[in-house]
Order: sequence, then C-alpha cells, then structure tokens
Amino acid sequence: MDFNYDVIVIGAGHAGCEAAAASANLGSKTCLITMDMNKIAQMSCNPAVGGIAKGQIVREIDALGGYMGIVTDRTAIQFRMLNRSKGPAMWSPRAQCDRAKFIWTWREILENIPNLHIWQDTVEELLVEDGEVKGVVTCWGVTFHARCVILTAGTFLNGLMHIGRKMLAGGRCAEPASYHLTESITRHGITAGRMKTGTPVRIDARSVDFSLMETQDGENDFHSFSFMSEPRHLKQLQCWTCYTNEEVHAVLRSGLADSPLYNGQIQSIGPRYCPSIETKIVTFPDKPQHQLFLEPEGETTRELYLNGFSSSLPMDIQFAALRKIPCFRNVVAYRPGYAIEYDYFDPTQLTHTLESKVIKNLFFAGQVNGTTGYEEAGGQGIIAGINAHQNCTGGEPFVLGRDEAYIGVLIDDLVTKGVDEPYRMFTSRAEYRILLRQDDADMRLTERAYRLGLAKRDRYDMLCRKREMIQHLVEFAKTYSIKADKINDTLESLGTTRLAHGCKLIDLLSRPQITIENIAPHIPAFQAELDKVTDRKEETLEAAEVLIKYQGYIDRERMIADKIHRLESIKIKGRFDYANLNSLSTEARQKLIKIDPETLAQASRIPGISPSDINVLLVLLGR
Amino acid sequence: MDFNYDVIVIGAGHAGCEAAAASANLGSKTCLITMDMNKIAQMSCNPAVGGIAKGQIVREIDALGGYMGIVTDRTAIQFRMLNRSKGPAMWSPRAQCDRAKFIWTWREILENIPNLHIWQDTVEELLVEDGEVKGVVTCWGVTFHARCVILTAGTFLNGLMHIGRKMLAGGRCAEPASYHLTESITRHGITAGRMKTGTPVRIDARSVDFSLMETQDGENDFHSFSFMSEPRHLKQLQCWTCYTNEEVHAVLRSGLADSPLYNGQIQSIGPRYCPSIETKIVTFPDKPQHQLFLEPEGETTRELYLNGFSSSLPMDIQFAALRKIPCFRNVVAYRPGYAIEYDYFDPTQLTHTLESKVIKNLFFAGQVNGTTGYEEAGGQGIIAGINAHQNCTGGEPFVLGRDEAYIGVLIDDLVTKGVDEPYRMFTSRAEYRILLRQDDADMRLTERAYRLGLAKRDRYDMLCRKREMIQHLVEFAKTYSIKADKINDTLESLGTTRLAHGCKLIDLLSRPQITIENIAPHIPAFQAELDKVTDRKEETLEAAEVLIKYQGYIDRERMIADKIHRLESIKIKGRFDYANLNSLSTEARQKLIKIDPETLAQASRIPGISPSDINVLLVLLGR
Repeated sequence: MDFNYDVIVIGAGHAGCEAAAASANLGSKTCLITMDMNKIAQMSCNPAVGGIAKGQIVREIDALGGYMGIVTDRTAIQFRMLNRSKGPAMWSPRAQCDRAKFIWTWREILENIPNLHIWQDTVEELLVEDGEVKGVVTCWGVTFHARCVILTAGTFLNGLMHIGRKMLAGGRCAEPASYHLTESITRHGITAGRMKTGTPVRIDARSVDFSLMETQDGENDFHSFSFMSEPRHLKQLQCWTCYTNEEVHAVLRSGLADSPLYNGQIQSIGPRYCPSIETKIVTFPDKPQHQLFLEPEGETTRELYLNGFSSSLPMDIQFAALRKIPCFRNVVAYRPGYAIEYDYFDPTQLTHTLESKVIKNLFFAGQVNGTTGYEEAGGQGIIAGINAHQNCTGGEPFVLGRDEAYIGVLIDDLVTKGVDEPYRMFTSRAEYRILLRQDDADMRLTERAYRLGLAKRDRYDMLCRKREMIQHLVEFAKTYSIKADKINDTLESLGTTRLAHGCKLIDLLSRPQITIENIAPHIPAFQAELDKVTDRKEETLEAAEVLIKYQGYIDRERMIADKIHRLESIKIKGRFDYANLNSLSTEARQKLIKIDPETLAQASRIPGISPSDINVLLVLLGR
Repeated sequence: MDFNYDVIVIGAGHAGCEAAAASANLGSKTCLITMDMNKIAQMSCNPAVGGIAKGQIVREIDALGGYMGIVTDRTAIQFRMLNRSKGPAMWSPRAQCDRAKFIWTWREILENIPNLHIWQDTVEELLVEDGEVKGVVTCWGVTFHARCVILTAGTFLNGLMHIGRKMLAGGRCAEPASYHLTESITRHGITAGRMKTGTPVRIDARSVDFSLMETQDGENDFHSFSFMSEPRHLKQLQCWTCYTNEEVHAVLRSGLADSPLYNGQIQSIGPRYCPSIETKIVTFPDKPQHQLFLEPEGETTRELYLNGFSSSLPMDIQFAALRKIPCFRNVVAYRPGYAIEYDYFDPTQLTHTLESKVIKNLFFAGQVNGTTGYEEAGGQGIIAGINAHQNCTGGEPFVLGRDEAYIGVLIDDLVTKGVDEPYRMFTSRAEYRILLRQDDADMRLTERAYRLGLAKRDRYDMLCRKREMIQHLVEFAKTYSIKADKINDTLESLGTTRLAHGCKLIDLLSRPQITIENIAPHIPAFQAELDKVTDRKEETLEAAEVLIKYQGYIDRERMIADKIHRLESIKIKGRFDYANLNSLSTEARQKLIKIDPETLAQASRIPGISPSDINVLLVLLGR
C-alpha cells in the first residue's frame, strides 16, 4: 500500500471528519486516521447538534460544503428553532440526533469521498524536518508521509478520566487514550496545557417516571440544518425536563470533599458555560433548583442523556442525589457521569488558517485548540482542511472574516486572544451578529466555497435561485404601491394602524404585526409573485422577510463592519520590531510579539492592547 | 442505585448476550457488564453467522428461546443454506450480516428485556468467599453483589495483539484489554492458559477490481435462522471469490522470519481449522493456490472482509502479497490483519452446566473456555445463563445430551476432553448427526425450553402446530395407498421405475427421484392435505419430507443413542475413590480424578479411558 498522502488528518471526530472531507473534496489525497472506525464522528457528550450560535456554525459549515448539517438532518430525532421569539440574529437551529446513526451516516459519506482513505490506527509520532511537518508514525509502526498534517485528537491526548477519587486513563469512556503524540509536538517548541470537560450519567428509560416531568416537543416545519433540504426521516421524539431540589443539593454537597474538582485532583479548567452540577451548586448556593433536560439518545434505544447533570462526583453520590428527584426515584443508569482531562495547545500559536506558526504545514482543529462543542470543532475542521489543501496546491489562505461567519469570529478569537478555559461560541462573541444569521449562511459563504471548489454546482445553483428570488421579492416590495383604502380594513384586522395615504409594500412589511404570510392574501399582485416561488418556498420567503424587516439594522452593521475592514486591510505582520517599540506599553509589546497579528484590526482585538497602542502603530505607519 | 443482582454477566459478546438474555428472561435479576455499549455482540472477526455445524447451533439457540438467530435474520445481507447437495444432516444455514446493525439489533433486544440491566464498566476482580462467588468489583470501583457470575470475556483477558514483530496490548483492535481478572480467578486454584486467534485485512471496496473475481450469490427462499420466521429486510448482497498464487506465496514466505507465529513470539495455539494464510502456505507448501472470499461488512459500507487471508505477518508483507492477486493490484485497506493472544481456562474444570467445579456459582462461557466461533460462544452462553438462573432458584441443572443438540456435544467435549487448541464445532464431532439437523432443532429443544420457561408461548404454539402437521402428513403417507396404473406414467416421467402393483405413498416418497413437491400434483388427495398447511408451509413440508425420506437412518441412530443412554443413566460421580482403583490403568485413574465424570457414558468419552476401564467400573458397580 501507498502511505504517501497530501493531507493526513489525525482523529475522526467532528473536526477531523470535516477536515478530511474538505481536503479530499478539494482534490488532495487525504488519509483520515482513526483509532476506531466504529466511532467516527462519535458524539462524546450530548446527542445533539446546534443550539444558540452553534446552530449558526453548522449552517455555515453546510454553506461551505461540509457535512455536519446534512448528517444532523438525516439523523435528527427532534428539531427545534431556538429563540424564535427574539430577532432573527438569535434564531438558532438545534437537533437531537440518533447517536449511532450519526456515526454510520458520517461514515458512509466519508467512505464514498474520492481521494479520501480511512485508516484505523493510532498516531504516536509526528515527523518534522527543518520546522516542517513530513508525516506521522502510528502505533502499528506505519510511517505515513504527507505534505500537511491536521491534528484533531479531541480529548484523547493523555486523556485521564475522573469519578470521585477514582482515576482511569482513557480518551473517552471505554476507549484508550493517545500517548506520545503531545510530547512529539511539544518537543518542537509548541506549548501544551491541560483542560477538563465532563459528561453526565446515562439513564435507562424504563426506570424513569415520565408522568412527573414536563415534555418538550420538536417542531416539524421546513427548517433544517442543511441548505440542501435534507429530509428528517427518523421518528421524531420528545424530550423531558425536570428540576433538582434542596435535597438533591444536600446530597451533592456531601460529596464535595471527594470531588476531583474541589479536592485538587483536577487542576485544569472546565467549560464555564457547561458546568458540572456540583459547580452549579457551589457557584449559586442560593439557587433552590436547577433545570435538567432528559434527552433521547436514539430512535430505538432506551438510553437517555441527562443534560445539566454533568458530574465527576463519586458514583454513589451521583446516584443518591439523582434519586432525590421524584421522577428518578427508581433510576437505573447505564453509567455514571465523569470528568476527563486532556492536552490542548495554546491556539495563539496558530495563524488564521489554523496552521502552526512553529511547524509549517501542521494544522490544529477542534478540542486540541481549547474549544468545546461539536460545532466549534467542525467549523475549525473545515477551515483547517481547506487550508491544508491550499498549502498543498499553493493556493491562497482561506480565512473567514468576523463579519462573514461565526467560524471567522471563533478562529480570530482563538488565534488572537487565546483561551484560558474551553471556548464555546455565543452570539455575544460576534460584534456583527445581525450579519451572521442562520438563514443567510448560504448567502454569506456558498459563493466563496463554490469559487474555491468545495461547494458543488448543485449547491451553488440552489443559492443563485434563492438569491434571485429574494432579490426579486425585496425589489417588488420596495416598488409596489399600496392604496390606503384597499388595505386599511386588513390592517385594522391585523391590529396595526390604518394608512392615511398610500405607501410602498415594504413599509407595511416593516411593521411588526405584518408578515408576508398574513398580508399577501390581501394583495393579489404580491401573492402572484409569491406563487412563482416553487423552490424551497418557506425558506425563501422567510429569508426575504428577514431582509425586509431588518434591513436598517443590517445596513448599519454592514457599515460598521466595512469601516473596521479598513483596519483589517492594513497588514502589519513583519513590519514592526515590537521589542524595540518603546512607545508601546510593555504588555502591548509582549502580546504583539506573541500573537504577531496579521492586520491592525487583529492587533486591536488582542487582550491588553489599548486604543492608544493602535494609534502608536498607525502613526508609525504614517497614517 | 442497587448493585445487587441474581446474575452478573461479564462481557457482552455472543456468549454474554445469550447468557444475560436467558437468565433475565427466566426471571433472574441480571446485570450485563460491558466495557463498551457500542460494541455489544460485536462480530470481532468475519461478519457472518452460521456455516457447517455452526448454523445448526444457531438454530438450537433459537429453538431454546435465544436471540442469535433472530438478530442474524434481521441483519442478514446474504443468506445461504450450505451443503444442500448432501443429506439433510449436513444442511447448514449461513448468513453474512451487517456488522453495525447486528450490534444495534442485539442492543435493542437486550435493552428491552425485563430484569436485565446493562452497565458500562470493566470488571477487575471476582469476589469469592468460602469457594463461592459473591460478586465482582469494577475498574470504576463499583462492588456488585450477585448469587451467580458468568464470565464471557472473549479475547479480552490480558489480550496482546501482534502484527509482525510489533505487539500491542488490547482486547480487540481499537479496544483496551482487561487486566487483573484472570489473576483474580487463578488465585482460587483455577488454571489458565493462553490461546491465539487472528483476523484478516479489511479492504476498501473502491480499490478492488471485481471484474477479476467470481461472484457468489445468496438464496432468497424461505430458510432462515429463527423458527419465528423473521424477515430479511436488508438489501441482499453478493460475495466474491478469488485465489492466491505462487507469487503471493513467495512474498508471504519472505516475511516468515518476522512472523510472530514462526519466530517464537507467539507460543499459544491458534484455531486449526481457521489458519492464517502463512500457516496455510507452510502446512501445504505444494498447494499452488488458496481460495479467498471477499465479503461485504454491511448494507451500505464500503468495507470488505477478506475471508481466508487472516495473518499476523508484518503489514508491508501482507499488503505486498495481496497486491500480487490481480483483483487486488491497487488494493487499499482500512487496517491490516493481526493475531491476538488471550487467556482461557481449561474447561475440564467445569461441569456440564458450565459451572466451575472450583468456585461455586461461577460460570464460564465462550472463548474463555477455549472455543472459537460466535455460534459456539452463543450456545455456551445460553446454557450458562439458564443454569445460573437455575442455581439462583434451586432448579434442576439444564444439560443437553449429545443426541439432543450440537450444544450438548460441544459442552460435553469441552468438559470431558478439554482443549489443546481453539475448539470449533464440526458435524463430525457429533455421533448422531442425523438426529441433530437444522430443520428439527425446534422439535428437539423447544418443548424443553418451554417447560423451563425460556421459550415463550408463541414459540411453543408454533412448534405444536408444525409438529402436528408433520405427524399428520407422515401418517397420511404411511396409510394412503397408491394404485400402480394411476401413477406409473408419472413415475416414468420423473425418471423412476414403474410400480408392478400398488404401494403406500410413503414408499414412493422414499425414492430419491420423488419429492413431495413433484408427486403431490399427481395425487389429488395428498395435494388436498398439503393445501391444509397454511402456517410456514415450505418449512413444514421440508421437515416432513426429511422425516419420511430418512426415517430409516433416524431410527437407527435413535436406537444407538438410546442404548448409550443406558450408560448415561449410570451416575458414577462420587461413587469411586479412583486413586485406589488399582485395576485401572494409571492414566485412567489420573484422568478420572481430573474430570470426575457424572456418568459412565461421560467416563467412556474421556480421552485415555479404554473400553476395559469402563468394564472395570461396570463390574465394580455390580452390572
């Protein structure tokens, strides 16, 4: 066999799968090395994809030609659009998935991508020559040569699991850890740290009293993750919610002395926004209850995931506490919650393409960069995969701006600010979030991906049809005049004020009480235009309506973004010897040396760099 | 949570799943402990169930109320009845299965069995008090108390994998081994040994030139594994065959110096009838070619299993050899073949119920007893599960005779003769193989299982209807008279001799040229009887025809079996002080002490016990 590749991807989690798919689909001969072909794209923690800001990332991955959205749609057992009551910038798709089918759907996709091979093995060593990666060596002794290597090892590097005072080596429950690889990387001057994450108990549905819980239903409208209109063909299921109580908290508190989080056994930092139940009761001692979500793990399995009850307390404490919640009085579990510590690498050691600044052609994506979340991993994976291919072919770096994609915000945050705890995406991290909506990820990204060669023709054609139709509808609304007497009764019946004299349709549609759906039947010419939309009609109308209703906000953010773009266009990398710029603060000098920003805009986002530091640089640049 | 159980099963392979299902279905509170809930009933080697003698075992497991047959039918992607050209004693069902769906189908069944819980963890220690098992302790530190424990750990105990000179600890590719448990057992005086098995390379279908191979199609008739008439709903696929050649052998030979089988690295013995390709070329140096079977791993995956090419030669040798076969000239693999060494326990330390003679209430089933094969494992599993339940409830031991089931032959061979290599079932191991046919496993076993409570009412009712119908048809054939002039033209057209005068229908049916199907249309009264069979018609007619055609052989074997039964009924356990029986040979004394046979018949089957030894015992018994 030939063990020479353009691109090698280490690890087939959410980052690795997108990375390998992207680089192979672009034409690079790619090998995806995984320890276990039965765990490809395994959802290590909750069996769900998307959620606030994360759902937008999945839509972006899809718009770029990745697969997380397609796999999620095909394996969804409950879909919901979160935050529908808020503005469209906040709308976020989320789906429960069938954990096993998620794996096998991803695997089938990967197995059929030309140029992509899968190899089951464990990478133990990185081959580096003259500061450039040359390949990897596996535990079975295979030497792979490659022009680029992408590390997406998740929590496996020197993974150590904790339940109470008990510790076990492993990369994930039931799976061995990966050794030697971290050391093979740090040997070249890349620094590594430790992070921690955790996962909750898995419950046998037969032992739960569902009559004591609230149910939470999915939505079965047109929304989906993929712009390619994938069907949801699995049976759609319910979730359930319940609450902890003071009794539960008392039991949990009684175990704190044996908690690895509080007795010093775990020193590394866990995800702030996904805390363990013991962290919640310690951080919020006055809160009498915490909400828990009980989520199905699949279409047919009895296994349930108890979202919100992540824990590394001793097992008996976990179960005793659980049994103080009435619906879990007789609970039987398949396994307890646990915490895991693993190695990550400070992401400020990377450029915006996710390539290492230290070792050429070595890319990092996913949890190894200190992030948390399947979506954050997938988003980094596709960017690393694209740029590895670009490196192989001498193509341009492919970087997304902060005004282009959450993925752009994510990577810029990572490489500019670094991480001191597992990084999770939020809408609040994006300064232009009305520009980064879930409904228009295709409008933002598909054309770029198509020009690159990653989004295929069918996807691009779909985008063009949608864009054209939306533009047509917006144009129609801007120009079509409404006569007051023809519409006033309707307006009154819709609870909005009557017109004194005629106006344009767009002015009506910007009223909160008016939607395309409720006004169109009363304006035959408009209805006739809508009837022409046959392709993904609901999606197209929704996108058009968002554009019409929020045009003001969108234009304002666009303007600000364009202003900042001027700073983005000022390249500064290699133009300063920061160490000798005495007009900068010491902190600024140190930070600028460490991050070595590409642009003045990136410099301005480095924590510790003040506006006056930026002014110093502007002056030195003669501006 | 309550960690007190009636029965604990360690390991969820083919033995463990049947064991846990049987004991729980009989009413014992059972916990199945598995390292990985995603690998339940994982087919570690080839993705196929059944085959010669093994198919019969699966039919027996099914007839007893086990699940291997049901899961196989539900996940079959190619079914064939092997040996159809031979007598019905040799007919053996075999199916390729979808490896992933096999897991998830089994898991769904187990998750829904009342009294059965699954726990994901690794058992590290056996709790034994006063020669009696009391429970287990897991690597997460959980103490389980139990009245019976069944060990079905497969190849995981101190598992060590080999590829060439490279060795890796593990229980199976990508999975950790299990440590400490062997030592926790041998500490009590049970002896352990090492065995070896191997598995071949897994191939990416996209790299194979199928035009250079022969195809092998499945059969889509009424045959199935389960007597419960499970449908085969997956897409039925082809297999392919090809041959090695002298060039392949030359490459393989060049690697022998680095073969762990031939350089002393592996000392333990592998399965004689499933040898590695290197063993085949060493054992049969003059054979110019060996046949290989390329088998699909699932309905949708591109992964293929290369049956016949099991190897632990260095990886580069495996691939170089493979590429000398024209259809594999450009082969790409997902992983190489490898060998694995693991601990087993001499099965002569067990009684016929598979309970340890040393530690009360401890049962052993599957590969830990030195067998090979999913079917052999499953057959032992169900018997161990039944008897663990019987021990819990004070029920009678449940043992199958050698004239009742291949499972009876298997277990009697194990506990009487022991093993010096991985034990695989063959029809030749059964002295009454015309009694142990695949078509009548239900007739042999379901009634016993129903009385026990394991086979459920629907299964028993199905058996009764079938039995009644068969008896009716046989009776009809015995009594219905045929007139020569009415049938002679038909006989001639069927290529058999004309009658001189009338005879009974049964006499015609015993002619090889005559089948129920070809004669019935010419005997309206018989056809009318056949038309009354509506329930599983083809199966019932086939069973009736076998009974009619082979009645003579069946009666003869039955008579011999009944004679031996007299020896089986002579209980001798505890009646002799063998050490002082000087009239026995020294070897006979040693063997009888070691095995301590239950009956005179069992004594007669111990290797090294001669007929004259048996006569000595008969005389001493006063017979």
